[in-house]
Formats: sequence, C-alpha cells, structure tokens
Amino acid sequence: MKVGARHYHTIWLNDDGASVDIIDQRWLPHEFRVVTLKSVDDVAVAIRDMWVRGAPLIGVTAAYGVALAMAADSRNTSLDAVWNTLHETRPTAINLRWALDTMRSFLLELPESQRAEAAYRRAAAIADEDVDLNRSIGMNGLTVIREIAARKKPGEPVNILTHCNAGWLATVDYGTATAPIYLAAEEGIPVHVYVDETRPRNQGAQLTAWELKGHGIPHTLIVDNAGGHLMQHGEVDMVIVGTDRTTASGDVCNKIGTYLKALAAKDNNVPFYVALPSPTIDWTVQDGVREIPIEERSGDEVTFVQGRGAGGEIASVRVSPEGSPAANPAFDVTPARLITGLITERGIAEASPAGLKALFPERR
Amino acid sequence: MKVGARHYHTIWLNDDGASVDIIDQRWLPHEFRVVTLKSVDDVAVAIRDMWVRGAPLIGVTAAYGVALAMAADSRNTSLDAVWNTLHETRPTAINLRWALDTMRSFLLELPESQRAEAAYRRAAAIADEDVDLNRSIGMNGLTVIREIAARKKPGEPVNILTHCNAGWLATVDYGTATAPIYLAAEEGIPVHVYVDETRPRNQGAQLTAWELKGHGIPHTLIVDNAGGHLMQHGEVDMVIVGTDRTTASGDVCNKIGTYLKALAAKDNNVPFYVALPSPTIDWTVQDGVREIPIEERSGDEVTFVQGRGAGGEIASVRVSPEGSPAANPAFDVTPARLITGLITERGIAEASPAGLKALFPERR
Repeated sequence: MKVGARHYHTIWLNDDGASVDIIDQRWLPHEFRVVTLKSVDDVAVAIRDMWVRGAPLIGVTAAYGVALAMAADSRNTSLDAVWNTLHETRPTAINLRWALDTMRSFLLELPESQRAEAAYRRAAAIADEDVDLNRSIGMNGLTVIREIAARKKPGEPVNILTHCNAGWLATVDYGTATAPIYLAAEEGIPVHVYVDETRPRNQGAQLTAWELKGHGIPHTLIVDNAGGHLMQHGEVDMVIVGTDRTTASGDVCNKIGTYLKALAAKDNNVPFYVALPSPTIDWTVQDGVREIPIEERSGDEVTFVQGRGAGGEIASVRVSPEGSPAANPAFDVTPARLITGLITERGIAEASPAGLKALFPERR
Repeated sequence: MKVGARHYHTIWLNDDGASVDIIDQRWLPHEFRVVTLKSVDDVAVAIRDMWVRGAPLIGVTAAYGVALAMAADSRNTSLDAVWNTLHETRPTAINLRWALDTMRSFLLELPESQRAEAAYRRAAAIADEDVDLNRSIGMNGLTVIREIAARKKPGEPVNILTHCNAGWLATVDYGTATAPIYLAAEEGIPVHVYVDETRPRNQGAQLTAWELKGHGIPHTLIVDNAGGHLMQHGEVDMVIVGTDRTTASGDVCNKIGTYLKALAAKDNNVPFYVALPSPTIDWTVQDGVREIPIEERSGDEVTFVQGRGAGGEIASVRVSPEGSPAANPAFDVTPARLITGLITERGIAEASPAGLKALFPERR
C-alpha cells in the first residue's frame, strides 16, 4: 500500500534481478528504512531478528533467500544448506517451512543450470499469490463494509476496530484484516479505524497506525482497555482482526486480548469478523481453548516499553518495579460462538464446523 | 502497609506536631521519596501536581493543609483563603471539597485560639476514619477470600486479579480493592495477585505492583489484554476492583478497561467484586452507561509511555507515529448485571437497586 505518495510492497526484487529490498520493520513507526538483502546470510538475519515479520512475508522472504542461494551455487548441497540455515531462523514458523519445502521440491526437479532463474520466478509467484489471496479476502470483507455504509448517513464513516497488526506489513500487500478497509477506501467508502495499541509489543501503535497513516486512512489510536467503552457508546460498527490459527470449529487463536474485544462486541451487538487465508485453518484441531498451546514470551516485553526518546533515539523504559515478576501469554483463543464470520479468500464462512465445511467441501 | 520492614501510611504528622510527611508518588515504583509539607503552598503543589492521588488521600492531605494554615494564622480570612487555594488545585475532586467543607464548618464554631490544635486533631480523625473504613471493607471482602481458600488444596493460593490502583497508596492505609487481600495475607491465607498494568497511565504496573511487592504479597504483572486468557484457563479465582462512582442501580464507573474484565469474568464464571466506601455511591444516578459523562484525557497519555531509562533517569518514549491521533477515555462503566457483589464497609451488597437499598435502608 502507499507510504505517502508511493505504493510499496513489503519486499521486492531490485532492477539488478538479483538483490531483494525489504522494509526494515524494526524502526517503524519512527523511521522508514529500506534494506537490500544480497545473500542468504542477509536473509537469515532479516528473518531471525524480525526485520520482516508476519507469516506470509516471512515465507516470501525465505523464498527469495533460496533464489539468492541458487544464484550463488545451484547444487543440491547449496539447496540443502539454505533450507537448513533459513529454517533455523524461526523454527516454529509454519509458513517459513512451507515456503522452503515448496522451493526445494520445485528446484530439485530442475537441472542446476536453470535453477537460479526458476527460483526467482517461483519466489515472485509466491509473492504474487499472497497479494491475490489478500485481495480476495479484501473483496469478500468489503461486502460487509458496503452493507454497513449503506445504513449510514452520507459522509458518515464506517467505524472499524482492529487489534494488533494483520496489515500489509505482515504480508506482501493489502494485509488480511486490513484488506477490506483498504479496498473500501479505494472505492470511496468513508472508513475510520480504531487501532488497539496491542500491548505488550504495541504492533497496533507501531505498525497498524503507521500503515493507515501512510495510506491516508483516518484512524485513532486507543489503549487496549478502551474498545469496550467505545462499543457501549455506538462508536464501533464492526471489528476485524486477523488470526494465527483457526480451528475446524471456527475458534480463533490470535494476539492476546482479541478474546476480550470479541466479548465486548457480543455484549453490544457489534459484528466481529476474523480475516484469514484458508491455509491458516488447522483442520486437525477442534476446541481452541483446550487444544492450542499458548506461547509464553519473556516478561521483559511487559516490564519494558520501547519507543522514541526525547533525543530522537530508540529507547526502552522500565514501567514496573524491579523484582515484580511478569507473565506474558502471547495469544488467546476466541471461541467461535463470539465470531460473526470468518472472511476467507473463498467467501465468508460462519464460524462453525458446518460453516467451514460448506465453504471448504473438499475437507468433508 | 509495609514498605520493606516498616509499616507506612501515605501521610502522617511529624513529631514536631506541625509539619506533615507524604510519600511523593510521582517517582514510584522507581524511587521511594518522602517529602515534608510545611505550608499551605506545599500542600497545594502536592495535590495539584499529583504527588498524592486517590480521592481519600487527597481529602486527608487537604485537611492537614487547613491545619497548617490555622497554625500560621487562625482568623476567618485565613480559613477562607486556604479553602480557596486548595479547592482550586483539583476542582472536580469531590472528596477534596468534602474535606475542606468539613474542616471549615468545624473550625468556624471554635474561637481562633483553639483552631490550630483542633484542626490537627480533626485532620488526624479524618485520616483515622479512612483507615477504619478500608479495614471494614477489607474484613467484609475477606469473607469471600476465606470461602475460596476453603475450597483450595492446602497451600494453594487464591488467585485474585485487580485493575488499576485501588490500593493503600490511594488511601491512608489498606486501600479499598486491596484491603481484603492484605487482611487475607495477615491471617495466613496464601494469596497471589494478577496485576493489570492498566494503560494508559500504568497505575497497576507503577503503584499496585510496588505496593504488593513492598508488603511481600506474591503477585504477577500482566498486560491488560491477558486477563481473559487467564480466566479461560482457571488461573483467576476472583476479581476485585475499586470504583470512582457507583450508581443507585449498582453500575460501576471505574478505570477504563474494567468493563472488559467484568465481561471475561462473567463468561468464565469468575466472581467479580467491586470494593467501595459507601460515600462513593451516587444515589441520584441510575443508568451508569447512559448517565455518567466519561472524562476524555490527553492523547499524549496513549502515545507516550513513562518509565525508567537505561541510565536510571525517568524518561518518556513515544510509541506511535507522529501525526496519528489518539483517543483517551479515562473510565468505563461496568453494568450491575456483570458484578457479583459490592463490598462496602457495611457488608457485601448485591449490585442492584434492591441490594443496595437493603444494605442502606436509610436511602429508601
């Protein structure tokens, strides 16, 4: 999407046909830095140290990492080496593994002499597929925004609340939860987004607010505590969030705090939607609350807050007493009963086993 | 309560019988500073610049301010002047006005020569009444903790979640929401407190965690997003919060985000209690959501976070992009239907018109 006047992707091949540029997201929202990746090592650092984040973007970055490896050495040993190096960077990222497996099995079929060029083409195709997927999610979600807009007075914005960053910065373009918002703005529907700051890592304040500002979407940053109050007072027309993992029953595992917003939406009859590419549906899991293990991250993410200091430097401050322990569960599970609909690339499914099977009959 | 080995109040008269010491709460949790107030001007600064905060503590501080004024000049003109000076410091603080009115009407009855000594006695009595009030709230809330403890395995702690700071730092001692917790610990019931950090001003991280740590109460700091997840997994036995204003119907206006925790408690059958001194019940208001105006505070409280920097200094960092607006409603209203009970100094009332009238029959 746009950063000021120019349309960006989060990753792109340079004119030299070899090196790859990314937005180094560690400095957002304070600095917009583009970094060139020229080697597998560069790619490994970018993934491991979270210069890029978000499952789809990590996958695409890894695919380009394989292409860079093939350009340097297209033998099978090189292919194995890059798979290992990149897989190690974030071993639990399912999309990373999927991208590496896809690239390897595709390239193993080809003679060494064709591998470099083919790898770049395949990486670009994975990136394009991600853009198409998110655009389809966006088109399906747009139907909901259009319906709400039709009930509004002319010029009155559709107020949408979102949590965390399921935006274009987590993908190649459009994002998942944000795709319907960007497409609504594209067709002239007035939208306004309430952005949950999303403690502890503040992805809402740091990334979602930055995205929306860059693209010129009206928005207001709020603390995670505020959404319930806004819903009680009719200030929110719908909620759209992303998801890390969706169960076959329609339960949604997403950033910690999502469940609280779903409860408030239910209590105030505000529609609560989850946007997701269908590959994030885990058909083997039914009961999200009971079955999905929740990652416990470092308490330092709670006790320290990072931002820009008075001198312009990126700094970290401690907000709690030394010696007070902190717990930091990274995700929670929103039960299907609180979810109005699951917006996928195929359409909007009811959040239920029957709803999901109706949209994905091949899973019956 | 205790700060390490010593038992403190938030305010006390010095041995000179004239000056008053307070804990300067601006530096908590990073530094424990005690400041001596020697004049009305000192008291005015301490209230206005929030060296002291919390309705009961503000009232007591103002009462001692009147005593300091009388010691310097006990004429009626001086009494009027101190009323005006201190009332101006936080004109919307109901408890401040109540304390000033109480002191003035009491002192006007006395000859000038007796006013200084009487003022110190009356201020001390107001402080003592606050301690007694909170101790009574604590004793009533303790019955609930005892019941939960009786169902636990030996040694297993009662897990209590609280939001914001309704602790002894907001009062003279004990606090409101924390009083039952301190009394439970006093009688040897193992308790553990989940402390919501309470964005945007982080009173949980900065004050509640510090209090509990000082008194030796096991506790864990969490982000405001985490409570729902913990309740889903049986990690919370009860919630206790304070309130700024309670309606005649039992709706509770408290720090922003309280409503979300009440929803999660209801959804998971976790008892949700509100601790309050009965003077905070506003018998003229019924429907809290519709009738209570919510203070909108500066967006800077959302976009900047204060803490201790790497060099030990108190610093502020910006967490969001420049130019992204922020909204900052300071309170929300929790409807009575989500509240298990209102813990008052007289006993625990059902959160309903009938429940409150049963406990306060003089209001019929």
